Amino acid sequence: MKKNIKVAVVQHGCNTDYNANLDKSVTGIHEAGELGADIVLLPELHTLPYFCVSEDVRNFDLAESIPGPTTRVLAKHAQDLQIIIVTSIFEQRAKGIYHNTAVVIDKNGSIAGSYRKMHIPDDPGYHEKFYFTPGDQGFVPIETSVGKLGVMVCWDQWFPEGARLMALASAELLFYPSAIGWDINDTEEEKVRQRNAWMTIQKSHAIANSLPVIVSNRIGHENDPTEKTRGANFWGSSFIAGPQGEILAKAPIDKADVIIAEIDAGKTDTIRRIWPYLRDRRIDAYHDIVKRHIE
Amino acid sequence: MKKNIKVAVVQHGCNTDYNANLDKSVTGIHEAGELGADIVLLPELHTLPYFCVSEDVRNFDLAESIPGPTTRVLAKHAQDLQIIIVTSIFEQRAKGIYHNTAVVIDKNGSIAGSYRKMHIPDDPGYHEKFYFTPGDQGFVPIETSVGKLGVMVCWDQWFPEGARLMALASAELLFYPSAIGWDINDTEEEKVRQRNAWMTIQKSHAIANSLPVIVSNRIGHENDPTEKTRGANFWGSSFIAGPQGEILAKAPIDKADVIIAEIDAGKTDTIRRIWPYLRDRRIDAYHDIVKRHIE
Repeated sequence: MKKNIKVAVVQHGCNTDYNANLDKSVTGIHEAGELGADIVLLPELHTLPYFCVSEDVRNFDLAESIPGPTTRVLAKHAQDLQIIIVTSIFEQRAKGIYHNTAVVIDKNGSIAGSYRKMHIPDDPGYHEKFYFTPGDQGFVPIETSVGKLGVMVCWDQWFPEGARLMALASAELLFYPSAIGWDINDTEEEKVRQRNAWMTIQKSHAIANSLPVIVSNRIGHENDPTEKTRGANFWGSSFIAGPQGEILAKAPIDKADVIIAEIDAGKTDTIRRIWPYLRDRRIDAYHDIVKRHIE
Repeated sequence: MKKNIKVAVVQHGCNTDYNANLDKSVTGIHEAGELGADIVLLPELHTLPYFCVSEDVRNFDLAESIPGPTTRVLAKHAQDLQIIIVTSIFEQRAKGIYHNTAVVIDKNGSIAGSYRKMHIPDDPGYHEKFYFTPGDQGFVPIETSVGKLGVMVCWDQWFPEGARLMALASAELLFYPSAIGWDINDTEEEKVRQRNAWMTIQKSHAIANSLPVIVSNRIGHENDPTEKTRGANFWGSSFIAGPQGEILAKAPIDKADVIIAEIDAGKTDTIRRIWPYLRDRRIDAYHDIVKRHIE
């Protein structure tokens, strides 16, 4: 980043109507553009209901190629508004290979790069291992006209390793498009712990790497069409944090919103001079990080 | 951990009087014992002023062996009170090899193990690279009569790699004795950001590894005898967090205190079943973690 930039996040709810979802995303992108944003982040799988709530082969029909219908629509708006769009696509890469993919569209409408979700969750209501082949590109920042973006996706947010690898590879901003919510059966206390943990772990990636972190999420309740679960309540709370984990902007839990913050281009370098974690990493002693468990 | 245990933290200020400092630590240990604690954590280098504020060869006279005078005093209290003590020693290991070492004394008064600080800071007012040889034992939990303790020291708290390695090696609790404070020249806003970052990064180790985290710090202002700096204001704020990063107990910024919390022996297993990060780590894609920088 050569100069300060403005980063925005669009937060909205999604349902089974692709066009209505995409319209909400585009409306948010335009709002971000009017606010002067250089980059806008959309929620994970923002054109679709969170179909991973159940396992149904028909849902593979929702996937598209990259480039494809959604990236083509967004490319036009990126170019019109001269804004970088970080979008999220259910990607069909080949017959039988589907990914949960973040795509970065640069200001000129070209695809700057993509990131295929590396860590794939699977728990009741989040059956992602059924749909998504784990990414095989590793943690590689995407070069854009304003800087290098370390884009990951949702479940990746719980793994300090991904953020660290993006930082070591010169990412200047970290992005986590998300679709995360509460189980309706959880107690209020448990809900508070989960949302706080989600904010804390992502702020910690900012702190550990002295990088701004930009997080999106969807809002609202979505039913489980199989009625095996009571569906999920997505908790919104999109936020932008600076390189000390300080909150620069945040969205509410339950309302659509567009948030924006200015990122100080020099601050990562300033912070890393006086809090020089990258200087002091014990790279001679981390080799067991690649083990599943240390016996 | 086979059953719930109680963990306590002693927070106090330190000055140039070794005996007075040790008395404060022992008083705190007894208070923790009376509260029923199974384990008590003391602050980093709790018998000494924070001498690393300047570089002076005479300060090496403050170092001691392990076992040595301090561990012998503490061993007696551990045995009397049937309490595990996590202490912090300026260790002379050999002529010219000094370490910042945490020592765990078990309930029977024996030394269960030690950990030599792996990540060594160095910045104005914290000249630790002058005094402390970096640890060469790696991140190995210490087996005790109540469970495996993942003990690290202060600056280690900023590195997710250390906490992860301790967790992979079956640590059941993470400990961070600390001596951290504000530069008097920092603005109030900067002070808030730094203390929040310090709490956030350590809570994040709890979250990423589904482990309780126990943190101690000293309090009070300590002068720089060389008068090159205006000294440090140690920010206290010792805390105990559960495996979702939730605060179970916390101490004030500027007052001596003993805090205690009960650790639910089953909770790490429960949390890891529904938030199974260890299942989903991409150990095939983390190899570059051992690089200084990825070009």
